[in-house]
Amino acid sequence: MPDALAPLQNRHLEALERRYAEVLGALGYDGVLIYSGHPALHFGDDQHASFCSYGHFQHWTGQAGLTHSWLLVRPGQRTTCFVHAPDDFWHLPPSLPDEGWTEYLEVISGRFETPPAVKASRLAVIGDIDDDTARALGAERNPPALLIALDEGRVRKSEYEIACLSEANRMALYGHRAAQQAFLTGASELDIQLAYLKASRQRESDVPYGNIIGLGAHGAVLHYQHYANEAPVSRHSLLVDAGHRYRGYCADITRSWPGPDAAPTFAALITRMNDIKQQLVAALAPGVEFVALHERMHQLLGELLVESELVSASAEAALESGITRAFCPHGLGHLLGVQVHDVAGRMSREGTALPPPPEHPALRLTRELEAGMTVTIEPGLYFIPMLLGPLEAGPAGSAVNWPLVERLMPHGGIRIEDNVAIATNSVRNLTLEHE
Amino acid sequence: MPDALAPLQNRHLEALERRYAEVLGALGYDGVLIYSGHPALHFGDDQHASFCSYGHFQHWTGQAGLTHSWLLVRPGQRTTCFVHAPDDFWHLPPSLPDEGWTEYLEVISGRFETPPAVKASRLAVIGDIDDDTARALGAERNPPALLIALDEGRVRKSEYEIACLSEANRMALYGHRAAQQAFLTGASELDIQLAYLKASRQRESDVPYGNIIGLGAHGAVLHYQHYANEAPVSRHSLLVDAGHRYRGYCADITRSWPGPDAAPTFAALITRMNDIKQQLVAALAPGVEFVALHERMHQLLGELLVESELVSASAEAALESGITRAFCPHGLGHLLGVQVHDVAGRMSREGTALPPPPEHPALRLTRELEAGMTVTIEPGLYFIPMLLGPLEAGPAGSAVNWPLVERLMPHGGIRIEDNVAIATNSVRNLTLEHE
Repeated sequence: MPDALAPLQNRHLEALERRYAEVLGALGYDGVLIYSGHPALHFGDDQHASFCSYGHFQHWTGQAGLTHSWLLVRPGQRTTCFVHAPDDFWHLPPSLPDEGWTEYLEVISGRFETPPAVKASRLAVIGDIDDDTARALGAERNPPALLIALDEGRVRKSEYEIACLSEANRMALYGHRAAQQAFLTGASELDIQLAYLKASRQRESDVPYGNIIGLGAHGAVLHYQHYANEAPVSRHSLLVDAGHRYRGYCADITRSWPGPDAAPTFAALITRMNDIKQQLVAALAPGVEFVALHERMHQLLGELLVESELVSASAEAALESGITRAFCPHGLGHLLGVQVHDVAGRMSREGTALPPPPEHPALRLTRELEAGMTVTIEPGLYFIPMLLGPLEAGPAGSAVNWPLVERLMPHGGIRIEDNVAIATNSVRNLTLEHE
Repeated sequence: MPDALAPLQNRHLEALERRYAEVLGALGYDGVLIYSGHPALHFGDDQHASFCSYGHFQHWTGQAGLTHSWLLVRPGQRTTCFVHAPDDFWHLPPSLPDEGWTEYLEVISGRFETPPAVKASRLAVIGDIDDDTARALGAERNPPALLIALDEGRVRKSEYEIACLSEANRMALYGHRAAQQAFLTGASELDIQLAYLKASRQRESDVPYGNIIGLGAHGAVLHYQHYANEAPVSRHSLLVDAGHRYRGYCADITRSWPGPDAAPTFAALITRMNDIKQQLVAALAPGVEFVALHERMHQLLGELLVESELVSASAEAALESGITRAFCPHGLGHLLGVQVHDVAGRMSREGTALPPPPEHPALRLTRELEAGMTVTIEPGLYFIPMLLGPLEAGPAGSAVNWPLVERLMPHGGIRIEDNVAIATNSVRNLTLEHE
């Protein structure tokens, strides 16, 4: 079957070649060798950990699973992909997909546990390379200025990349629908996760990040990392934060559902959180400061807390006293690409990686938005004992309706997350266009 | 619920303490600190690879998922487990199971990204420890003589360990039954894998090794590493090599099934391979050389090749000319424990790790069998183009019935694998006792 995305991918690769030529020229390299990486062994064992290839390798090929492979980019010469595909009856050698890059690039298959020989007067090598390999290549390993420039080249997505992100969203939503169905039939977290994987046609080691499947209070554990085998007796809620990877590109979608044992207030809060998500998506545009939008989320959360009688102060007071941060300690969103938390989200105009603002320590994106950026928008509202305990004990605690918090505690929390591509005069909700 | 295995686990831990005291005393250490390890980040990314804790850490605790944790063993003092369980609203801190070890050992929960302070005049530290940590501890890191002695202490299983291996087998067999059922309904490899996980109550990152789910010719790829999304049109066969981990201990079971499109010869070969597996299991006993038993497998495979008219020479000729090795390139089995390929399988009596015999390069166990060893017995017969091509071209090729090989090629291969505990006067088939 011919690849319908090939024309777009070709343009993506042409732009990549131009960008690399500029960057390498400016930094005085005549070539860069990008290593895919390879899976690590568990210590003292012969079994491997799961693997995902280096982001810059995926940026050209979209191949998250290729190992021991190399990509050689030299301005003025055809870019070459050295694909490690040894004759081996123990494993199935990789078969290349019917995708445009396999024609656009020169592809050389063989054994590449050691890197290919490269002629260059000043070569850089990037990726997870050991000392001996870098020395043998005579190459500079992971030079910081080059990494910063190449990371920056991933921030604005090409039309091809947005098409891939959209397809990843489409597939992930099959999983989300199946997860909701499984929840309605009383499934455990493990069974909801397996239903998600089945419907989205993925194995666990291929999802772009560990799916979060939280029933009840587990929804309040922001990166809840387990799948309980048994369903709880009471089914208050389900939070599913789960994605899909298509040609390297990641979907990252969260949905929250009320269960048969949910308090009516909780179901109403989900509806309102969905409205807040929509308002924030509508506010996306080039030139918008993401930190300001994150603060807008806190303003809207403050209003919701007041409106829902969780807080008796004003929305402004809830914001200023830190109440909203106790109910939502994470950031509004992040860049999205071949990595779920894509690179350079806190890069300054001068090319320095900045720390997050002190009052928003978990915010991964602090830049001014630009056309081409693809971001997640994921407002959340949680009942986290570890954060609400100190709030109750502190001066702002008197404004909180603790009996209502207590009733909502078994519901864990709410997060609604869409993936959005920002263009010059519009935004495109890559999630809702398939929902 | 009280832990029914606690009395057995206590005896296991008492024996471990005695063993460690002997080994440490003989080597002049007054303590050893065992590191669980921690998951690695994908390069340039903030997402983690899958993780499995160090075998020696599991030998005491059975906890494959604990990270950043430490076990301190000092002869004459109570063994202490430092469990990394920080206050963290991003993740659910580990909750310790209701198992005997949590009472037998002293358990200290806290933050242990850096190791606990240890008073010892000569301390060893084992595990995946960096230079700085080893220096800060003032400890010898992974001393070879100590590792060899501790590995050897895992070769003969305690009654507790055999109970765990048996339970792992029991759970794995739920998966195998579900996999066969899914195959009969026409499922793809991905769906068979998900059915296996659902029935055996596991997520993919918790299985002790990557489950092999091979439909048709994929059964001939010995460590086939994919799960195809689509079911093939013709369903000749299914090979499932899949396990379970219970309290650290691994089941490793393989079953082969004929499909609706199987040649009758193939179904007959599966039956006979099962007989061969049974004969080999019956031959297990203390004092038996495993290399000799591996050669016995080749003798039986030679007889089967002749009997099934795949080979027209004698069984002896099939053996001597290498024909049987082209049909079965892997070893008869391996030690089984907290690692699926457990340690010290090729250790000599003098404590040297030996290479495999040149004519059996994939054999992982080359020792004389002893009471307490638990092994896999996994005879196989495959139609592997990469091995049969050279056989056909070589001098022995004229004895092979190539038209029949051609007809069997789409079936991939057959492997039947049980887990067996060897006692002084008996063997216990941990797989069949639950089937």
